[in-house]
Amino acid sequence: MKVYKPKNRLTAKQYIDGVLNGDRVILSRAITIIESNLESDKILAKQIIQAILPHAGNSMRIGVTGVPGVGKSTFIEAFGKYLTTLNHKVAILSIDPSSQRSKGSILGDKTRMEDLSHNDKAYIRPSASGDTLGGVANKTGETMLLCEAAGFDIVLIETVGVGQSETAVHGMTDFFLLLMLAGAGDELQGIKKGIMEMADMVVINKADGDNIKKSEMARLQYQNALHIFPQPESGWTPVVTKASSTKNTGIDSVWDEVLKYKDLVDQNGYFAKNRNQQNIKWMYNNINEELKQLFYGSPAIKNTLAELETDVVSSKISPVKAAQSIIESFKKSI
Amino acid sequence: MKVYKPKNRLTAKQYIDGVLNGDRVILSRAITIIESNLESDKILAKQIIQAILPHAGNSMRIGVTGVPGVGKSTFIEAFGKYLTTLNHKVAILSIDPSSQRSKGSILGDKTRMEDLSHNDKAYIRPSASGDTLGGVANKTGETMLLCEAAGFDIVLIETVGVGQSETAVHGMTDFFLLLMLAGAGDELQGIKKGIMEMADMVVINKADGDNIKKSEMARLQYQNALHIFPQPESGWTPVVTKASSTKNTGIDSVWDEVLKYKDLVDQNGYFAKNRNQQNIKWMYNNINEELKQLFYGSPAIKNTLAELETDVVSSKISPVKAAQSIIESFKKSI
Repeated sequence: MKVYKPKNRLTAKQYIDGVLNGDRVILSRAITIIESNLESDKILAKQIIQAILPHAGNSMRIGVTGVPGVGKSTFIEAFGKYLTTLNHKVAILSIDPSSQRSKGSILGDKTRMEDLSHNDKAYIRPSASGDTLGGVANKTGETMLLCEAAGFDIVLIETVGVGQSETAVHGMTDFFLLLMLAGAGDELQGIKKGIMEMADMVVINKADGDNIKKSEMARLQYQNALHIFPQPESGWTPVVTKASSTKNTGIDSVWDEVLKYKDLVDQNGYFAKNRNQQNIKWMYNNINEELKQLFYGSPAIKNTLAELETDVVSSKISPVKAAQSIIESFKKSI
Repeated sequence: MKVYKPKNRLTAKQYIDGVLNGDRVILSRAITIIESNLESDKILAKQIIQAILPHAGNSMRIGVTGVPGVGKSTFIEAFGKYLTTLNHKVAILSIDPSSQRSKGSILGDKTRMEDLSHNDKAYIRPSASGDTLGGVANKTGETMLLCEAAGFDIVLIETVGVGQSETAVHGMTDFFLLLMLAGAGDELQGIKKGIMEMADMVVINKADGDNIKKSEMARLQYQNALHIFPQPESGWTPVVTKASSTKNTGIDSVWDEVLKYKDLVDQNGYFAKNRNQQNIKWMYNNINEELKQLFYGSPAIKNTLAELETDVVSSKISPVKAAQSIIESFKKSI
C-alpha cells in the first residue's frame, strides 16, 4: 500500500465551519478527508462528522438504481435539473464497489451529467473506492451527512449494477427508485425479486418515440408484478410510471410521487422509524470498521500476520488454524 | 434470531469418514454443518475441515460467470455432462449473496440442470445464504474442500450477476470463465472492465442458428478488447471462443483451453503461487469471521448493544459515538 502524505489539510474547525456555511470547495475537501484511509485523516473525519451531525438529516434521501444501459445518468441529470428549478439544492452521490480491481467501467464517467455539473444548486460526487462494501457504504453515508449539513435538501444516491450495493443504498435512503427499460426482459436486466421488493417506485425509462407503446405495456406488467409482493412496512403502494429523460417527460411526476410518499410516511410514523433503524445499522457498520481497525492496527498483530503468511504459504499451518491462533493471541494482547 | 435444534447430527469421525469415502449423502450433510450458524455446528465444522484438509486441493477449480440471461445454467449443464463423459467427477457450487431479502430470483431454480442432477458423477449444491459476502464465500470455499476430499476432481463455481461475488469466486478458483452474448452490448450486459480483466476465457454463448454470424463478430470484438489489458500474471493469453450449450458445440474446446492453461501454469509455477495467495486470503477471511464471532458472541457486548440501540433511537447518542464507546468497553472486557 502506498503511503500518501496529506497536504494542505485545514483544521477541524475550518472544515466544520466551511461545510456549515455551504462552501462547496471546503465541502469537497471535507469529503476527501472522509474518504481517506490515513490514520490522521480518520481522526479528523470523526471530529468533523461529530460536529456536523446535529445539522444533518434534513434532506429527502432518494436511492436510484437500475442496470447499466437503463439511462441512469441521463435520468438523474433530468431529475436533478427539474429539482433545482423548484429551488431545491440537490447532492448526487454514487456507490459502486463492484469493479475493485481496475476501479471504473469501460465507458468513462467524465462526460456524464454535463449540464448538472455546472449547476449551482447541484453537487455531484462520484463513489469512494474501498475494499469492502461496508467501508464504501459508511463513507457514502457520511458524505451524505456532510452534504445535508452544507444545505442540500435532496440527496440522490445512485448505485451501479445488480448486487449488494442496492441493499446498502436502500439501507441509507428514504425512497428507493428502480429504473427499468421496456422490452429488455426481466432476465437480461438482472432484476431480482429482492430488488423489486425494495422499490417504492419503478420508472420505465426511455419511454419516447417508437418506445412509448412498449413502455406502457411494460408499465402495466410491472404494476401487476408488484402486486405479488406483500404490502411494504411503509404502508405505501409502489407505483410504476413512464419517463423519458431525453424528452423530459414524466420527470415531474417522479417528484410528485416522492412527495406523496413523504406525506404518508410522515403521518404514519414510518419515516422516523425507518431512519431510526438505519441509524442502528449505521452504528453496526461503524462497529465493524472500528473492530477491524483495532485488530489490524495493532503492531503485534501485524508482525504475527507476516509470520503466519509465510507459514501458510509453506503449508506449515492451514489457513483455518492460522486464523484461530492469531485470534487467540489477539485476546491476550488487549 | 430463531434457534433451531440440530437433529440427527453424526459424530465428527462419521462425517470425515463418509466424506473421504465419497458418500454423497454424508457429503451433503457435512456441507449442511459447514453452512450452519449454530455454535455447536461451527465447532464440528472446524473439526471436519481440519481433518479433510490434507485430502483436499486436488481438483481443477473453475469459476463461471455472466449476467442473468446469458445461459449459465444451460452452459454448466452441457459442460458438466461433457466432463463426466471424460470420466471426471464434477461438483457444481454457486455463490449468490445478492438477493438477501427474499433469497432467490424471480425465476425458480428448481428446474435448472435437470439432467446433471441425476448424473452419478456430478454433484450440485446451491449457494449458502448469509449476511455477508465474506461469510458466504468462506462457506463456499469450505464446501469446495469437502467436495475435493470426496473425490470430485473438477469444481465449477457459478456466480450470479455482476458485482462483488465475481471477485470472491475469482479469488477461490484456478480458471475464470466469462460467458457473454453476441449483440447484447457491453453496457446492458453490465460487463465491467474489472470482470473482463479477471477472465482467462470468454465464451460467446448461444452461438447457434441465426446467431452464429453475430457470435463470430462478437468473438473477434472481445478478442480485440482483451488485447487492451496488460498480460495477466499467469502468463496466459485469454482466449475468446463461441459455444452453443443447446446444440452442444464448442463445449469440448472450453475444456481443451482449461487443460492448455493448466499445463502452462504448472510449468511456470503460477498455479502453486496463485493457490498460495488464495490460502492467505482465506486465512484473512477466517480471521475476519472469527473476530466478529469474538465480539458479537460476548454476552457483555450483547447487553451493551441492546442498550446502545435504545440510546441511538432516542437520539441520546450518535451512531458514531455509540460505536466508539462499545469498542472501548470491548478492549477492557478481554
